Amino acid sequence: MGRSWALGDLLSTLFERRAAPFRTAGKDPLPDLCRALMSGRGEVSGMKLAGAALARWRVADDAERRAFFRYLADDLDLDPEALQSATQSYQATRGAEELHQLLRAAEPPRQELLRRLNQAVGGTVDLVAMRVALLDAARQEPDLARVDLDFGHLFASWFNRGFLVLRRIDWDSPAALLERLIAYEAVHEIQSWDDLRRRVAPTDRRCFAFFHPALPDDPLIFVQVALTRGIPSAIGPILAEDRISLAPAQADTAVFYSISNCQAGLRGISFGNSLIKQVLEVLNAELPQLSTFVTLLPIPGLARWISEQTEQIAAKDPQAQLRALAARYLLQAKAPDGQPRDPVARFHLDNGAEVHAIHADADLSPRGMAQSHGAMVNYRYDPARVEDNHETYATAHEIVAARDVRNLVH
Amino acid sequence: MGRSWALGDLLSTLFERRAAPFRTAGKDPLPDLCRALMSGRGEVSGMKLAGAALARWRVADDAERRAFFRYLADDLDLDPEALQSATQSYQATRGAEELHQLLRAAEPPRQELLRRLNQAVGGTVDLVAMRVALLDAARQEPDLARVDLDFGHLFASWFNRGFLVLRRIDWDSPAALLERLIAYEAVHEIQSWDDLRRRVAPTDRRCFAFFHPALPDDPLIFVQVALTRGIPSAIGPILAEDRISLAPAQADTAVFYSISNCQAGLRGISFGNSLIKQVLEVLNAELPQLSTFVTLLPIPGLARWISEQTEQIAAKDPQAQLRALAARYLLQAKAPDGQPRDPVARFHLDNGAEVHAIHADADLSPRGMAQSHGAMVNYRYDPARVEDNHETYATAHEIVAARDVRNLVH
Amino acid sequence: MGRSWALGDLLSTLFERRAAPFRTAGKDPLPDLCRALMSGRGEVSGMKLAGAALARWRVADDAERRAFFRYLADDLDLDPEALQSATQSYQATRGAEELHQLLRAAEPPRQELLRRLNQAVGGTVDLVAMRVALLDAARQEPDLARVDLDFGHLFASWFNRGFLVLRRIDWDSPAALLERLIAYEAVHEIQSWDDLRRRVAPTDRRCFAFFHPALPDDPLIFVQVALTRGIPSAIGPILAEDRISLAPAQADTAVFYSISNCQAGLRGISFGNSLIKQVLEVLNAELPQLSTFVTLLPIPGLARWISEQTEQIAAKDPQAQLRALAARYLLQAKAPDGQPRDPVARFHLDNGAEVHAIHADADLSPRGMAQSHGAMVNYRYDPARVEDNHETYATAHEIVAARDVRNLVH
Amino acid sequence: MGRSWALGDLLSTLFERRAAPFRTAGKDPLPDLCRALMSGRGEVSGMKLAGAALARWRVADDAERRAFFRYLADDLDLDPEALQSATQSYQATRGAEELHQLLRAAEPPRQELLRRLNQAVGGTVDLVAMRVALLDAARQEPDLARVDLDFGHLFASWFNRGFLVLRRIDWDSPAALLERLIAYEAVHEIQSWDDLRRRVAPTDRRCFAFFHPALPDDPLIFVQVALTRGIPSAIGPILAEDRISLAPAQADTAVFYSISNCQAGLRGISFGNSLIKQVLEVLNAELPQLSTFVTLLPIPGLARWISEQTEQIAAKDPQAQLRALAARYLLQAKAPDGQPRDPVARFHLDNGAEVHAIHADADLSPRGMAQSHGAMVNYRYDPARVEDNHETYATAHEIVAARDVRNLVH
Repeated sequence: MGRSWALGDLLSTLFERRAAPFRTAGKDPLPDLCRALMSGRGEVSGMKLAGAALARWRVADDAERRAFFRYLADDLDLDPEALQSATQSYQATRGAEELHQLLRAAEPPRQELLRRLNQAVGGTVDLVAMRVALLDAARQEPDLARVDLDFGHLFASWFNRGFLVLRRIDWDSPAALLERLIAYEAVHEIQSWDDLRRRVAPTDRRCFAFFHPALPDDPLIFVQVALTRGIPSAIGPILAEDRISLAPAQADTAVFYSISNCQAGLRGISFGNSLIKQVLEVLNAELPQLSTFVTLLPIPGLARWISEQTEQIAAKDPQAQLRALAARYLLQAKAPDGQPRDPVARFHLDNGAEVHAIHADADLSPRGMAQSHGAMVNYRYDPARVEDNHETYATAHEIVAARDVRNLVH
Repeated sequence: MGRSWALGDLLSTLFERRAAPFRTAGKDPLPDLCRALMSGRGEVSGMKLAGAALARWRVADDAERRAFFRYLADDLDLDPEALQSATQSYQATRGAEELHQLLRAAEPPRQELLRRLNQAVGGTVDLVAMRVALLDAARQEPDLARVDLDFGHLFASWFNRGFLVLRRIDWDSPAALLERLIAYEAVHEIQSWDDLRRRVAPTDRRCFAFFHPALPDDPLIFVQVALTRGIPSAIGPILAEDRISLAPAQADTAVFYSISNCQAGLRGISFGNSLIKQVLEVLNAELPQLSTFVTLLPIPGLARWISEQTEQIAAKDPQAQLRALAARYLLQAKAPDGQPRDPVARFHLDNGAEVHAIHADADLSPRGMAQSHGAMVNYRYDPARVEDNHETYATAHEIVAARDVRNLVH
Repeated sequence: MGRSWALGDLLSTLFERRAAPFRTAGKDPLPDLCRALMSGRGEVSGMKLAGAALARWRVADDAERRAFFRYLADDLDLDPEALQSATQSYQATRGAEELHQLLRAAEPPRQELLRRLNQAVGGTVDLVAMRVALLDAARQEPDLARVDLDFGHLFASWFNRGFLVLRRIDWDSPAALLERLIAYEAVHEIQSWDDLRRRVAPTDRRCFAFFHPALPDDPLIFVQVALTRGIPSAIGPILAEDRISLAPAQADTAVFYSISNCQAGLRGISFGNSLIKQVLEVLNAELPQLSTFVTLLPIPGLARWISEQTEQIAAKDPQAQLRALAARYLLQAKAPDGQPRDPVARFHLDNGAEVHAIHADADLSPRGMAQSHGAMVNYRYDPARVEDNHETYATAHEIVAARDVRNLVH
Repeated sequence: MGRSWALGDLLSTLFERRAAPFRTAGKDPLPDLCRALMSGRGEVSGMKLAGAALARWRVADDAERRAFFRYLADDLDLDPEALQSATQSYQATRGAEELHQLLRAAEPPRQELLRRLNQAVGGTVDLVAMRVALLDAARQEPDLARVDLDFGHLFASWFNRGFLVLRRIDWDSPAALLERLIAYEAVHEIQSWDDLRRRVAPTDRRCFAFFHPALPDDPLIFVQVALTRGIPSAIGPILAEDRISLAPAQADTAVFYSISNCQAGLRGISFGNSLIKQVLEVLNAELPQLSTFVTLLPIPGLARWISEQTEQIAAKDPQAQLRALAARYLLQAKAPDGQPRDPVARFHLDNGAEVHAIHADADLSPRGMAQSHGAMVNYRYDPARVEDNHETYATAHEIVAARDVRNLVH
């Protein structure tokens, strides 16, 4: 059933995906290939030229890549004079044709080049990688940031939320995909395939990721979820080797204990908020008895902030003192823009979460000790309050926190 | 095997696709919803607002839609003054931040609105339909063409060749999809499900289409191919009810006898050239013995052109006369832009095809008789000459034709 | 994702399924090929020989097929003498080796032949078709029934309930599959593709079928279900062209209005009971608010039975009289074995259903009028009573019926 | 596309597969459940009873299992008297009804019990596991071999070659499946996930397995293939960590270096020959330039055989001596049945392979050294000679060997 449909898939796959790696890079300089690609009327040889240019790019050394980025920055920059003149014409007429000319003049030509490069098989993958190299190069040549604006603009359009697909990842997922999770996990390092299995295979574990059709084998972002009874106060029991799984129907709480962005080349395009929202809905549909949705996350900037404090905090014990410091850090330490200094806090509070609880001795790993003296935090997503919380935060940078947490501050 | 993977698919599907039709439209006026959507910091309620706005759009009557289009055209237009000033700043500094401001000023705010609307489940489908309504409305209010520029710009980016997937369609394809072919077929009407089966089921028939992941159930363009021995000179035998199928291995020729665009909302975004190129590659891979790739197509403008001619053409018989007229029409009748007057000819010649043969009495259907007195044409795609032909045509509008065809003209 | 998995599928598919139709039948007589297949030590050329024999079978004319069936009946029959002797040995020793010999002697050699033929690609399909021809031939040569015993024995083992897969069929199912439903529908003829769409596409329609992995494109049995509010009393509104669909969440009743066996070659192997049971569970899981599960079915033997009655039934009107007659027919008319005379009643009552209601003027189609003067019946499946009802029926052939129906009899 | 199809799959999957593990075992003794299952008229509660019996079986302790096996052996044994009498009736009449009675009498009732148990969700998996336990128990109670005859008979029917599906396994296969390969690999132990990846991921590696639809997540047998240039003479380079992959188009040889049966419960049902044959065809279709198909395998019984020899073999060096001994062992050492003493040799020679080459110092692993002093052998599958070789071997136990190998013997 559906055999020939699978055949169609295969044909396109064989043609599209497999072709790429076997394409040999030619000797033509990249700017020459790009000029040919840009000049091409119609798209007759567009795919071929785009493929050749990207093949060349993949084998280019650092010098050649820098030269290519300079070509993008200098030769394919926007022409302000032309734009001035087009703008004046439109100002005078407000005509569609004049607007058309204006919009063309207002777009750096490198945007069109990137769109044409994307026609090649696997082009999106190459362009995402190209931006990683560009961001790297921009550290030495800051004006390459102008080029990055166009990458960012196109990627924001291409990776629009509407084009993302949520998929559950589990132990029946392809090994090639699971292997990437090991590489991408940014919060609690995955130690081995056994550790990986413990995170995706048990009945009380869930993992979800966003995918884009142009990178079907490679997640954009993924979240790891533990189903528990009650809100956990330490990461150790969640990652333990020998724990007993909970039947999903027994769980009342879903704990988001790790969220990792996967693609450095998609910097600035935010997927996390959508992912959390959608996973909440999926979990709700699958397990309607779940009543509590929280994170259990590190407080990455805590240790550094504490080291900067001069004031003492009196507390009955070190744990209490650490919790009090963490509460002050999360609720009161601000970045220059008035938002919380802690980047993870900023993210979840802006999403409408609230600071639910702070735990000492919660992450005893070297990294956990180094960045927050072992403290962790639960941000809570209460579906009934998420919108209001977001509104409160967005308009006044006011942070909603549980009474216990607020009490830690006073 | 792959069970949970399918589960993931389903979850996302249930959540994403199914949600849309059941969402009830609210009473808020569209511009209000759009303003909320635009003002939203972050994307907390973006998907929900976008969904609400599109639900409202779907049930809006003509007056409300016109008002919405005017809102797009007038309230969300580009501000030339702001753009002038941003351009001057960039001219002075050539700085990244100034370019950033310029690019923001250079984009009509309705583009951002469209991107945000696209976050909704099924949003792309709605936006493509919205453009159909817009093009319609623009016939009465021509300045809506300014709004269409932004639809066109975004769609060209979203429907970039790199995001399209080629799939074969056959008798094992979903009925819901096949039913759409009946509606979309633009060249030789599909009379019934039996007729449809004859076009996709036999061993010597192929049908390929481009799909976009955001419209997975709906083709963008499709081509129907007959595998034959020798180049056919009439459409009747290809569509006949009682013909005997050819074993694919016996075929030496692939005949593209119908190419139909499916989405009026994607006007101006060309898929045909890529489709033909890619289908050639797929057929070559499947049936390496195929040596000839041709079309067999109507000559849509022929009858009208003939009716405009005053000069007589001498010929030994009516068929010869018709063929001679058709040859002159295809090779010599030009549009004001110097390209061939016949739109189908323009398309294939620009793709690098050549005029291979002209047949009288080739399409005796009412439409065939009305538009071209029954004449049809084979455009030939010779892989070895396609690039040169395109070059010749693109640079000098010079048309490559077989000797027999050229002889018809003199 | 899962690409290569699909590839694996394709490889096996290409090799297994596609191979079959292109295999050319040789000239060797079938019994010769079968003898070679039976004598083959190991299975080295088994698949090839089996394929050749089945290819030969497919093109064989009637005479050759009869000869082949006689070969099965006569040459490959069980040898009672050998069995006697083996039985005696086992009787004496009760040893495993002796039992082994006995079991071999107790199986007609044609069973092994059928198993070996089944090794061929698509062999099961051919063998199911072969049995259809065998049943046909057995009408003239009744002793071929001995051969049919072995077909029946093997098929009962191969088509064990544990190997069947339940699948929903809808408008996204392959056209090639849907087309088969048109051919197989045995209760209310499917008039056209439009009629077919009305039965599987609307939100308040369901269709489920059992499939066997060896016949993946061909259902074994399917049931059509209408979701309704209340129990319907006529088939017309269910099949009507212009009806308005019900949102599934609004339905409280699932109506099984047509159940069709598809494979004449699987005669005697019962799938209907399992199908109904499993569909009940699937519907319950999808739509927990459903409270009533009934059939709405013809009473195929009613008209003939009425024509045999001499006694008059007094009734206030013809409808009442028809209903009374139908009630008596269903509840009181018995076959010689003591079970109800009506075959459909037998099936559902044995499954644990009860006679819930009888309707006159319920099926006005020519067939409905001819077989039951337009009367139809609801058998009701009450999950809480199904087991008891079955028990009651199975032990005492006692029929459970609703009070209204029972009242019709008295 | 195909959404609802996937939905159908899911429904059946959720219902069928997921149900099994959550079913709680009741307290009823197994024989009671089985008696109820056997007595059940129709199949109304068959699936439920079968499920309950298997759930009970899964938690049964050794004593309960032994009692159950005794119940199968003693209570559900064939009744020779009844069979005698049925045979006499058939002998007298040769009637279909009498044959029907005979066939029923000739089948131990436990066969019907096993068929009914198989109706349960996941029943086949349980029955395969049950046979493992039975084989184990039969070591202490040899007469349980009678019961095993019926398991073997049914499994041979159910796992008929015609029901198996060949699938390629690679690095995109589900991790849960790949993990099983690690457990099942019987020839060259898979050391780690990295080792596993090296065997299935590189472009010049292939892995194929047979699956049965009732055990979709669990292979029956798998083979590992290396694509090489030339015939390898040692396993080390094939399994090396740091080797460079060959482009498949460069390969001229396919090396079957490991074949592992996976299911102890399917003992006696041979899949290896079919697997090799079919993989040959698949490889031929994918890579038509492959000209040589060989194994590279251990010689498991060599060391033990050498230890039994008293005669000296003169040779210029230890390697030559080992190769000469191995040649004599493979070509001349016979089991009592006249076939080669080496079980692996028996298998491949019976399949039509020939002894192509013998290598010393070819497998330096502890197991390789222990079982064959490091010697390995290439059996060659020459498609042109396979049938003849098999015939020669099958009729006369004559072994075909390359001249070089034959020379080693003299």
